[in-house]
Amino acid sequence: MDRIMLGHGSGGRLMHQLIKEHVAPAFGLKMLADSAVLGPDEFSGCRIAFTTDSYVVSPIFFPGGDIGGLSVNGTVNDLAMVGAKPLYISAGFVIEEGFPMDSLRRVLVSMAGAAVKAGVRIVTGDTKVVDKGKGDGIFINTSGIGAIRHGINLGARMVRPGDKVIISGTIGNHGVAVMSERNGLSFDPPVLSDTAALGGLVEAMLGFEKDIRIMRDPTRGGVATTLKEIASECGLPVILNEESLPVPGGVRGACDILGLDPLYIANEGILLAVVPPETAESLAGVMRKHEHGSATAVIGVIGAADPGRKGMVLLRTAIGGTRIIDMLAGEQLPRIC
Amino acid sequence: MDRIMLGHGSGGRLMHQLIKEHVAPAFGLKMLADSAVLGPDEFSGCRIAFTTDSYVVSPIFFPGGDIGGLSVNGTVNDLAMVGAKPLYISAGFVIEEGFPMDSLRRVLVSMAGAAVKAGVRIVTGDTKVVDKGKGDGIFINTSGIGAIRHGINLGARMVRPGDKVIISGTIGNHGVAVMSERNGLSFDPPVLSDTAALGGLVEAMLGFEKDIRIMRDPTRGGVATTLKEIASECGLPVILNEESLPVPGGVRGACDILGLDPLYIANEGILLAVVPPETAESLAGVMRKHEHGSATAVIGVIGAADPGRKGMVLLRTAIGGTRIIDMLAGEQLPRIC
Repeated sequence: MDRIMLGHGSGGRLMHQLIKEHVAPAFGLKMLADSAVLGPDEFSGCRIAFTTDSYVVSPIFFPGGDIGGLSVNGTVNDLAMVGAKPLYISAGFVIEEGFPMDSLRRVLVSMAGAAVKAGVRIVTGDTKVVDKGKGDGIFINTSGIGAIRHGINLGARMVRPGDKVIISGTIGNHGVAVMSERNGLSFDPPVLSDTAALGGLVEAMLGFEKDIRIMRDPTRGGVATTLKEIASECGLPVILNEESLPVPGGVRGACDILGLDPLYIANEGILLAVVPPETAESLAGVMRKHEHGSATAVIGVIGAADPGRKGMVLLRTAIGGTRIIDMLAGEQLPRIC
Repeated sequence: MDRIMLGHGSGGRLMHQLIKEHVAPAFGLKMLADSAVLGPDEFSGCRIAFTTDSYVVSPIFFPGGDIGGLSVNGTVNDLAMVGAKPLYISAGFVIEEGFPMDSLRRVLVSMAGAAVKAGVRIVTGDTKVVDKGKGDGIFINTSGIGAIRHGINLGARMVRPGDKVIISGTIGNHGVAVMSERNGLSFDPPVLSDTAALGGLVEAMLGFEKDIRIMRDPTRGGVATTLKEIASECGLPVILNEESLPVPGGVRGACDILGLDPLYIANEGILLAVVPPETAESLAGVMRKHEHGSATAVIGVIGAADPGRKGMVLLRTAIGGTRIIDMLAGEQLPRIC
């Protein structure tokens, strides 16, 4: 492959290859993390989380949200996923000549509102303008920094056989909302993006159980790709119960029409967590009391170390079969975030 | 004005208006800083600098550099300008479908090389792909964090009448290099971009004189716009000697041909500093010994508080006249960084 394809931005296998084979090695890294954990030596003993994301979602306004709020929430969530308290956000705009000032104002107001809700401050920024036809309305990069809570150690290395897999909400809403807007479809009731900041939910979770093993937000590539990443990193199988997966009726219907699989659709307001088995159910109870966790479900378990199933994601289907879940290959929904 | 124009990205008056009237107020800020200084409360007593920049330079390869190295150096410099030791960089890519993989590799290698040279690490990243015709090859956002040195207090509030203004190198090289590549012009000797990381130079400067008042790198909008920013912020006049301004012959010639003013051309490897008068000459001597400060010159002085000249930049011309220097109005060189 000698040219970049849309699939290189999908969050799936092609993107992982691109990053693993080209980007990360160029920077002397094994993998380019969503959030880096830095310090404590350079920062007076403090550990800092640092993350970046560019948002190119099309269209920029969609049911349940817009690129502005999305760009704040997404970056807040990347910080929250590594156990950090999200604190500060930067905003880098690449705007196409001719972009309506009204739309810019709407996007800015949405960013500001999302920041207030998430308890973070937008503190630095940059604005670039490109000639008409050399961009697409507006692209937003947000980067974020947060302070890692003391006594929190998250990571694939903490995952043990028998641990439970929890999801904090229903699947597929964001991707279907954007897709329906893009294709001029409407559903009744409408499917709304789940875009939300999860810092508060994570705080409640870590307050109840500080030994959570790992958290990830299943954005591009969806729940399937994120679980496959976790399974690969910890070298253990993840076994899912299809019947426990919370897929709303609207998403199910849209997926039937559009030929999509909910497991691969981007989400922007839910998280996956691998947690100790003893407290999984009570932790789920704590999460259900939270605004962004009301549909929390225990959806699976980490299997025993077994060379034949190392790093696999296995879906136990409703009729008793087992389906092997892989990363998203190629491109299902371009420019979803 | 109800639509974004190219001039909104120029670094000049239009961009300042856009940010001051729309972006900053939306985020509850007076102005959106190039680098924010954060802490110490949230970070165990440490003060942290945080900055972001998106790079949309066209063409991406130009004499003396490319978008990759530029994106690292520019962000390192924003950190250095607030007295921070640059430490970590994020990389957010927005790539157009069909972009040659070879060019991507070249850009990545350039970023990695610049990071090594600047002593920073690229630790987190993000890759998005947009459809052909909805971008322009590659846009790169880099954000950066650094630790602020103890005992350093930079800012317009520290500037006093009588302070000297120092520039660390010659003017206009970056802008002319990009412009010549864009227009298929070549000069003999060629004018090369000055893109460079200034962390080391700043370290040497602060090591010699910790009471430096303020530093800025004159990128978009050039030396004129940056000095006008400093003058406005401190409310004192800046008085420049035209004869001390180091403009290389090649830049002078190119400006004659292209109808440009060197004072408004973007630079990517020099800094302006306002410094105490007593040590200005010896500090300039220290800077001249540094790789990126060999052409350092004292170019002006901060005038006395005077209601009639408050916040003005005045250029004493070679023939004894005085010219009032304002910010760049509109757009001189779009997509220069």
